[in-house]
Amino acid sequence: MINVSEARQIITHHVKPSRGREVPILDALHFVLKEDISADRDYPPFNRATMDGFAISSNDFNNSSDKKFFIYGEVFAGEMMNHSVDKGCAVKIMTGAPVPEGLDAVVMIEDCRIVGKDVQIDIEKVTPWMNISRQGEDALKGDILLTDGTICDVSVLSLLATLGQEQVYIYDIPLIAIISTGDEVVSPGQPIKPYQIRNSNLYTIQAFLKDYNIIPNYVKHVPDNKEMLYDAIQEGLKRDVLILTGGVSMGDADFVPEVLDRLGVQKLFHKVKIKPGKPIWFGETDHGVVFGLPGNPMSCQVCFKVFIELYIRHFMGLKDILPVQLEISTNRSKKGMREDYFPCKLGSDYLIVEPIRYNGSGDIKSCLHSDGIAIHPGEVQELKRGDVVDFIPWRSL
Amino acid sequence: MINVSEARQIITHHVKPSRGREVPILDALHFVLKEDISADRDYPPFNRATMDGFAISSNDFNNSSDKKFFIYGEVFAGEMMNHSVDKGCAVKIMTGAPVPEGLDAVVMIEDCRIVGKDVQIDIEKVTPWMNISRQGEDALKGDILLTDGTICDVSVLSLLATLGQEQVYIYDIPLIAIISTGDEVVSPGQPIKPYQIRNSNLYTIQAFLKDYNIIPNYVKHVPDNKEMLYDAIQEGLKRDVLILTGGVSMGDADFVPEVLDRLGVQKLFHKVKIKPGKPIWFGETDHGVVFGLPGNPMSCQVCFKVFIELYIRHFMGLKDILPVQLEISTNRSKKGMREDYFPCKLGSDYLIVEPIRYNGSGDIKSCLHSDGIAIHPGEVQELKRGDVVDFIPWRSL
Repeated sequence: MINVSEARQIITHHVKPSRGREVPILDALHFVLKEDISADRDYPPFNRATMDGFAISSNDFNNSSDKKFFIYGEVFAGEMMNHSVDKGCAVKIMTGAPVPEGLDAVVMIEDCRIVGKDVQIDIEKVTPWMNISRQGEDALKGDILLTDGTICDVSVLSLLATLGQEQVYIYDIPLIAIISTGDEVVSPGQPIKPYQIRNSNLYTIQAFLKDYNIIPNYVKHVPDNKEMLYDAIQEGLKRDVLILTGGVSMGDADFVPEVLDRLGVQKLFHKVKIKPGKPIWFGETDHGVVFGLPGNPMSCQVCFKVFIELYIRHFMGLKDILPVQLEISTNRSKKGMREDYFPCKLGSDYLIVEPIRYNGSGDIKSCLHSDGIAIHPGEVQELKRGDVVDFIPWRSL
Repeated sequence: MINVSEARQIITHHVKPSRGREVPILDALHFVLKEDISADRDYPPFNRATMDGFAISSNDFNNSSDKKFFIYGEVFAGEMMNHSVDKGCAVKIMTGAPVPEGLDAVVMIEDCRIVGKDVQIDIEKVTPWMNISRQGEDALKGDILLTDGTICDVSVLSLLATLGQEQVYIYDIPLIAIISTGDEVVSPGQPIKPYQIRNSNLYTIQAFLKDYNIIPNYVKHVPDNKEMLYDAIQEGLKRDVLILTGGVSMGDADFVPEVLDRLGVQKLFHKVKIKPGKPIWFGETDHGVVFGLPGNPMSCQVCFKVFIELYIRHFMGLKDILPVQLEISTNRSKKGMREDYFPCKLGSDYLIVEPIRYNGSGDIKSCLHSDGIAIHPGEVQELKRGDVVDFIPWRSL
């Protein structure tokens, strides 16, 4: 049986090339750019006043004995003074407005007094380019400001708007199908018999996908019936990623591996040294991949986080989620050589993880109130309080 | 002038009571529950096998000399054996199936040998309730499992499905209007003159709101014209939160405070000791609130994060974002007594913040590649490398 890091390596080696898609910039939020973006003009595009006040020439100021200047006119943001300013004059200027040609300093309004048609400057020293952002000081026309691979966070989106981009190329989401299996499983809204359980896995997976703006376009529950499973999987295989839950263990009704084989899906691994989630199955077709997760809800949640999210992030051009190293708050022991993934709460200082108590992986409360999962390494039997463990938050950015 | 914490206190004291809304559970992801949810039945709802194997009576096992049991039948997950099992018999059972009445142990399949019509048990010891999750051990019918105020993360959503909830009450999002102002501002797709800049603030704010699943239902740009501003604000005031950008400084075209006053909005504060963002304006009507942000894109981004997000989270029942305490990687000096919010990158160990270099708050790259903002306290002029500062990530969960 392979271990978790081997399984993850196999997954990343089989990521299919993702498509690009052009979207309005607001739809690109948290997606990854699939193009370089350069400055369409100089930034600032003009010498810009950074204060409300009076624009003058620093040279005029230094040559002036009374520091009093005739007010030649005024310029607001969004305007441009089209004629040159007479020597020794000042122009009233608003923040964001272009400094008129020939002037090179802005004196803030608090340091100016208006005396009739003149302005009296009340400071000692005026330096060139004072309170002015000079044309091109942030970027020159043609400078590459964003590169292929950049995550479109709010700052990037804001910059795209500034640069006049209405649309942008991003790495597209994968098309996804989800099939849950099991005779015992009933939809949340349906009548339920005492020996049946409700289908939570379809919701768990859709919720995880929602954080990547993915709405799966084929979602189906199938009972433990080979022919129905065959038809559903055949349809599901048309997507980039098919996710199955249940039917991958060794029980007499676990038909998933057999049906996948009949449909020509090439198995890449079945079973990983992980707890929970050991029976996980992974394979590929010529255009997509298939994950078969155990039906147990906690296994489904952990396996999504450890294996499927990895695939989706690579497909979408996102970086791997790196675990954070934190101290564990209590002793913890385990048996066997499997890597143990256990739900934890973060301490209030974000430096400690506290394991959640629960009754085994079937407990409906197992992951409740947890911030993520910590890892008990395969070869380590006893973790001591204060030992450093890897922690992966449920929600990654 | 008030400081940041005073301003934040005023904001939280004026949060209007939020509405509840019933939504399908998948739409509740990352929203806050506005009801308690209890167990609709015992969990597990029956004594459930946690392994594939054979169910027997531990008593029969202890009284048996040859540890060989007649195979009475089999039971799959989603089935129920309706008749009682004869004494001394075994039942083949699959993971997830209900253990038949009278039996109290499951021996895993690897420890069983089938010998004709019998099963031979190959282990020494069988204890009561071995490999069985007992009815009600996780929760009893009527137990409150989720309380008002719980954030609907993936685990909560999965539990809601398990409990048969199709719909759930959540704290609703606020209705939001955004108005940007300024004669110099042009939409990203429009032709632009050299002395004009593009409207990035509308995108910045919409992007931030998107992380809260909020799509504002009134978004408008208005030039620096009092009557047009009056009409737009009058319309915007019909929402729970009106966000304005630009027009709140002291320049001659900054009409926002005046128009808000004419429309009967009660000012709660104007100007805060913060950099960037000093001119921020906050007020209320009898049913909503108004934020006036400076037009500078970096100020807009910081003010959203520090002030508006606070309001939205309280409205939606979410907890405040607590800053993380991290070490700063370099010395940093400032002038004046304003609290300085500066964009930073997280170090690879997540324990250090590195300030981003940029040309003042007008730089179009100011927040680019930053993970969040750190705070340079008002009364501190010099931060030394290694000093601990408060850090707020741009994207909060």
